[in-house]
Amino acid sequence: MAEFAATIHVRPKAEVRDPQGEAITAALRSLGFDVAQVRTGKEFVVRFSAADETRAREAARTMGDQLLANPVIDDYAVELRAPARSVPR
Amino acid sequence: MAEFAATIHVRPKAEVRDPQGEAITAALRSLGFDVAQVRTGKEFVVRFSAADETRAREAARTMGDQLLANPVIDDYAVELRAPARSVPR
Repeated sequence: MAEFAATIHVRPKAEVRDPQGEAITAALRSLGFDVAQVRTGKEFVVRFSAADETRAREAARTMGDQLLANPVIDDYAVELRAPARSVPR
Repeated sequence: MAEFAATIHVRPKAEVRDPQGEAITAALRSLGFDVAQVRTGKEFVVRFSAADETRAREAARTMGDQLLANPVIDDYAVELRAPARSVPR
């Protein structure tokens, strides 16, 4: 088993409203920034073990599908790095 | 004025507890994954205008300092791309 670190980025789909992003847009404008749009998302840095890189990538996708993203409203992307030990967090 | 897209990644500092990450660790383990740790963070994709790249980078840092990150418990990193038009969101 090797260690991996996957960063899973979860963002609302482009056609889904993002009320938190809209609030931040308004707040940044009131601070004087010329902001067109803010979209918010979450990221999950998961350190885990898997047999090899193929299995690790598959596992990270399954985590996204089963737990981290809501497929109705979210898109997600996986960034995989190995070994996890070379990654600061 | 040129358009920019900055992605601002906000994460709890390494020494700060991350209860959401701990809950996700437990949930992923119960799904059968061999997970050592999960750290959660937020990302903000901000499309905005600035005079040039230096000003844009400065603006993105100020957004992080003044609004998006809590300097007591969060670290943040800025990724700047220009022009925003080449970026899908």
